[in-house]
Amino acid sequence: MAHGSIKDKVAIIGAGCIKFGDNFDQSYIDMVAAAGRLAMKDAGVEPSRIEAAWLGTYLPNNGLGKAGSTIADPLHLHGIPITRVENFCATGMDAFRNASLAVAAGMYDVVLVLGCEKMKDRAARGIPRVEHPSIGKGTTAPALFALAANRYMLEYGMPRETLAKVAVKNHYNGARNELAHMQKEVTEEQVLKAPMISEPFGLFDCCPTTDGAAALIVCRADIAKQFRDDYVLVKGIGLAAFSHMPYYDPTFDYLGFKSTQTASKMAYEQAGISDPAREIDLAEVHDCFTWTEITNYEDLGFCKKGEGRHLIEEGRTRIDGDIPVNTSGGLKSFGHPIGASGVRMVYEVVSQLRGQAGERQVKGASLGLAHNVGGPGAVSCVSVLGLP
Amino acid sequence: MAHGSIKDKVAIIGAGCIKFGDNFDQSYIDMVAAAGRLAMKDAGVEPSRIEAAWLGTYLPNNGLGKAGSTIADPLHLHGIPITRVENFCATGMDAFRNASLAVAAGMYDVVLVLGCEKMKDRAARGIPRVEHPSIGKGTTAPALFALAANRYMLEYGMPRETLAKVAVKNHYNGARNELAHMQKEVTEEQVLKAPMISEPFGLFDCCPTTDGAAALIVCRADIAKQFRDDYVLVKGIGLAAFSHMPYYDPTFDYLGFKSTQTASKMAYEQAGISDPAREIDLAEVHDCFTWTEITNYEDLGFCKKGEGRHLIEEGRTRIDGDIPVNTSGGLKSFGHPIGASGVRMVYEVVSQLRGQAGERQVKGASLGLAHNVGGPGAVSCVSVLGLP
Repeated sequence: MAHGSIKDKVAIIGAGCIKFGDNFDQSYIDMVAAAGRLAMKDAGVEPSRIEAAWLGTYLPNNGLGKAGSTIADPLHLHGIPITRVENFCATGMDAFRNASLAVAAGMYDVVLVLGCEKMKDRAARGIPRVEHPSIGKGTTAPALFALAANRYMLEYGMPRETLAKVAVKNHYNGARNELAHMQKEVTEEQVLKAPMISEPFGLFDCCPTTDGAAALIVCRADIAKQFRDDYVLVKGIGLAAFSHMPYYDPTFDYLGFKSTQTASKMAYEQAGISDPAREIDLAEVHDCFTWTEITNYEDLGFCKKGEGRHLIEEGRTRIDGDIPVNTSGGLKSFGHPIGASGVRMVYEVVSQLRGQAGERQVKGASLGLAHNVGGPGAVSCVSVLGLP
Repeated sequence: MAHGSIKDKVAIIGAGCIKFGDNFDQSYIDMVAAAGRLAMKDAGVEPSRIEAAWLGTYLPNNGLGKAGSTIADPLHLHGIPITRVENFCATGMDAFRNASLAVAAGMYDVVLVLGCEKMKDRAARGIPRVEHPSIGKGTTAPALFALAANRYMLEYGMPRETLAKVAVKNHYNGARNELAHMQKEVTEEQVLKAPMISEPFGLFDCCPTTDGAAALIVCRADIAKQFRDDYVLVKGIGLAAFSHMPYYDPTFDYLGFKSTQTASKMAYEQAGISDPAREIDLAEVHDCFTWTEITNYEDLGFCKKGEGRHLIEEGRTRIDGDIPVNTSGGLKSFGHPIGASGVRMVYEVVSQLRGQAGERQVKGASLGLAHNVGGPGAVSCVSVLGLP
């Protein structure tokens, strides 16, 4: 199958992210406006410079987020194309992907990507909490991922203590990030003794329910220098969809996700990466649960299947490790407003590549990765970003 | 503002559409599978040739259609990118737009566009019927469009009899289309005497509630000839979003839609069209209500504002007129499964340009247009398609 490449055709010249959390004082529209303006300010562009936009929202909030026009008024974007994209937990990153492809097509010079999700006031409004609608009652996200985690832990003899180390690392990072939802460290003992949600996941093995929004300004690579010197290039983006109900797929081994394996291969091929563990300087990966981060290490090719535990146990994915993962705090600590997460991850990678990550800075980072997996496993998206 | 053009970069090599109607015997998945296979068969390609896909669905059906992976199993599309797009009534055409841009970017050679909507079994499942969620109770689509229709009729002194002529024309066309939902002619008297839905719209002024699916195979223009000689080129696609709640916009005059005016200008500029009424041979326009078709004539530049009534009164938009509109039967008679409609319109234009429209054939058609407006007015999408 012949695929083209997006390598070095598209640049990120602006990135913005609001404080994630229990944002009861902000509406969906408030969050959209704040994130969009931050990104435009960062790029030094006015709304009149934006030629098209893509909005990532998973569950519209009282109708807001159902269509791209939701963001027209708050961001003064009237009379341009605005597309809403939804793709489970890869929603935000797929919005970024479609925006990047449109710029690569030469259709637009400067576009906006915005991810926003209002999660915290659903229950109050009588909107049911999310369960996988195609499978049945009780199949919440923790329960579904736990099925795979249990199988994995049995297969590879991995203890809960290893899972806990992921939470400890990501809370450590999040405690140093003023935009994160949970800015507090936890100990391994706290994680292990926390109330059980769905065996083997205790409370601190699960990402929180979070409100948030993030935005990017994307442009043609050949004009990026007009806006700033420290722009970031898109090196590759892969997205792979598999069965809508992956747990019904008889070839699913419950040990990892084909969608991540496939999407990362696509992105690496475009970016010209043959040894991701050596070449990638940092990664934001989808740690909706502690186990997910470990299987992601393997599915993304940072190590072999079954060996992900060593990366966390040996501290190799800490900020000072050889392949830092979730320097932002990850979904675990930064929070996971679904449609916002993929965009927020790209924001973190951009901050790192620009050297603006403060005490979380990965020294000399020049190539970063962002990854979402949703479904669970029905879809993954992987973006590779680098300095010029 | 600098915009690029998609002109002649992308081709349609396959189109498929299932019978629209009360498809109680078909699930969402059944319709997806049938439409996708028809399009692949028409293009002479197997699923293995499809490199990426875009799915347009407005309201997921019991979770189906929420993410692109929905169509992976029924169409044997595993391990490729599949994006779900939603954009009110322009959902299907925006899926086509994003697919076309990705192909124009050189990222993929051959992709699938699929629009599907299951409308008829929502009530039975306790899912509320659609009202505009941001405005309030009672603001159904008929009521919202009726507000504008009343204002328009007052301003231009247009009688209900003119609206009725739109229904008569489109039912005449639909009666000759074996895929249409309502394959029956109506008389002007029947339309005028039908039960009132929302003044001035009687039952026959409103499009029906319909199940349906349609699909397209899109490829790089420079390889289209490998698949067929009678491929169709994308000449231009415009999409324009305005306020999410256009009726709250103090500049809205209730006489037409800025989104259609803007989107059509974008498409015409790309296609190099200066006089659409003369240059365009046929158009599928968004006749969700009879009045909408008349204001669309004007917003699309087929005539001046306030003069749309003459096009229908003088029979100029009949199949044998100088600018045939909704030869398919339109939303009015073909039906309007929201996410499917834009794709279905492109299917009709492709059929006409290939000379395969049977007794509905517009003689010598070489340039066609398809148009959606949603919101009402929050978003419009316009595609111009032509022979090589």
